Amino acid sequence: MAVYTDVSDEELRAFLGGYALGDVLSFKGIAEGVENSNFFLRTTSGPFILTLYEKRVREEDLPFFLGLMDHLAHGGLNCPVPVSDRQGRALGRLAGRPAVIVTFLEGLAIRKPTAQHCRAVGAALARLHEAGRGFPLERPNALSLPGWRPLFARAEGEADSVSPGLGDRIRAELDHLEKVWPRGLPSGIIHADLFTDNVFFIGGELSGLIDFYFACQDAFAYDLAICLNAWCFEPDASFNVTKGTAMIAGYQSVRPLEEAEVAALPILGRGSALRFMLTRLVDWLNVPPGALVRPKDPLEYDRKLAFHRRVRGAADYGWVRA
Amino acid sequence: MAVYTDVSDEELRAFLGGYALGDVLSFKGIAEGVENSNFFLRTTSGPFILTLYEKRVREEDLPFFLGLMDHLAHGGLNCPVPVSDRQGRALGRLAGRPAVIVTFLEGLAIRKPTAQHCRAVGAALARLHEAGRGFPLERPNALSLPGWRPLFARAEGEADSVSPGLGDRIRAELDHLEKVWPRGLPSGIIHADLFTDNVFFIGGELSGLIDFYFACQDAFAYDLAICLNAWCFEPDASFNVTKGTAMIAGYQSVRPLEEAEVAALPILGRGSALRFMLTRLVDWLNVPPGALVRPKDPLEYDRKLAFHRRVRGAADYGWVRA
Repeated sequence: MAVYTDVSDEELRAFLGGYALGDVLSFKGIAEGVENSNFFLRTTSGPFILTLYEKRVREEDLPFFLGLMDHLAHGGLNCPVPVSDRQGRALGRLAGRPAVIVTFLEGLAIRKPTAQHCRAVGAALARLHEAGRGFPLERPNALSLPGWRPLFARAEGEADSVSPGLGDRIRAELDHLEKVWPRGLPSGIIHADLFTDNVFFIGGELSGLIDFYFACQDAFAYDLAICLNAWCFEPDASFNVTKGTAMIAGYQSVRPLEEAEVAALPILGRGSALRFMLTRLVDWLNVPPGALVRPKDPLEYDRKLAFHRRVRGAADYGWVRA
Repeated sequence: MAVYTDVSDEELRAFLGGYALGDVLSFKGIAEGVENSNFFLRTTSGPFILTLYEKRVREEDLPFFLGLMDHLAHGGLNCPVPVSDRQGRALGRLAGRPAVIVTFLEGLAIRKPTAQHCRAVGAALARLHEAGRGFPLERPNALSLPGWRPLFARAEGEADSVSPGLGDRIRAELDHLEKVWPRGLPSGIIHADLFTDNVFFIGGELSGLIDFYFACQDAFAYDLAICLNAWCFEPDASFNVTKGTAMIAGYQSVRPLEEAEVAALPILGRGSALRFMLTRLVDWLNVPPGALVRPKDPLEYDRKLAFHRRVRGAADYGWVRA
């Protein structure tokens, strides 16, 4: 949670001169967003979020992310929409950084989701998958199977210092997943990071999705597996099958899963748990001095992986044959 | 710039249940405020700021600060106003901290003020002094002359490590100010920290004042001296007398200075510069490991002090006999 880049009133005024958004009424850095600097901006035209992209987001990916938000919003998904300047450009520059203004999405992130929240998230995820159809830009998933060994190489030497035997567990998992990883599943645009921080609710109703900076093309069911990991475990790493049932049913109310996707779910659950364990492990072992952001615990996903290894089929996640 | 305390959606919902503010539409930590955790809160009733008081603000001072904001707003000053809960209490508790909701003040802090901004600040400061009359609670200024030696004692041993000779310069300054410090000047409520962060503008017009957490009873002219220090020096520590003239004229357009105040201005300028140098020096030498806030440079005020020592009279700040 941080604002990494400072923006003066003069820089802001000069930047906003390129937009037809009226006068500035308010501008405050918000303590949110691990990758970027975000500011709450209110003008006489309404509320917006101004984002400055810090070095973790690759500038060449920005047309994909911004175009995608626009495409999804036009497809009926509730998400922030990039605002164009007077020249019709969504991507600008402010304080030496790529900068974008998006519409403000109301709602609150939920810390402890109920089954009802999980159902709504499942349905919204399927709507995202449907709304992504026809989006013309390509971005392969850099954090899928082929990316995991290079990622692990950056942490391998120190993995056991985090938990005894962790290195061996990861190696065994990689060996197994490389043998059985499913190919040819229905694919398209996925969010790839739909954690509780990125879903807003107003009084029990899902109001929208944010943070599309991991979005890419990959298997739809892999995205569902990420959400099962992110939403349906209890703090003690036990899987809450009521929440899983609700999430899968919510998903299928919009887009029914194919047989191959149902069959692949346990492997996708393991793979997505490993993916988050690996990125968290690398971050955990590489906290820069003076970091403003406290890294997330990689062992949360070590415990979740132990559950996934015991799963015999999609029914263990709450999938029910229609 | 930080949010020190995390508030879950559940804690927030329970807390807001005590208020008649409708449903929450948005809640975001804002990267602002060195002393407290601040959140932007929007409900169906409108925008607000929710503040959690961290340990640097003494809980027993809160009734003074909250009562004062209310008193000043009723006296016509544009400033945040504490919102009462259903029981009529302004001060609540959230996440283990004293917590208050105040109305949202629109506007933008100005980084590089012009003479016109300085005139507006002078006038607003005088309006604050007038609006404070009749406020019944008492809070002496803990950071006036009697507080400076104890403050210096916490930094004395290391002062010369920050700048050679700094310890001697401070000791000489304290000796001098203790001999000539003025008594019996017109006094009342002062803001005591009206830096550029704490004054909002919308398109050139001053929209209001915030952050009353140093407010206390002291000499009005001392508050003006603080503002001359905060607003009228250039980055190279040269005093901009055009800005000083504008600020003093703005002040006098609302509340004319008495002869004794005019005569005291050079001493008050030195004293207030020393006050900010001392608190900055203590903070500079006591940065906690992992601090989220970068301390401000104490030597900025060492350079300003050098100017004040050369001042022969209020005219050097831009005061003009009416």
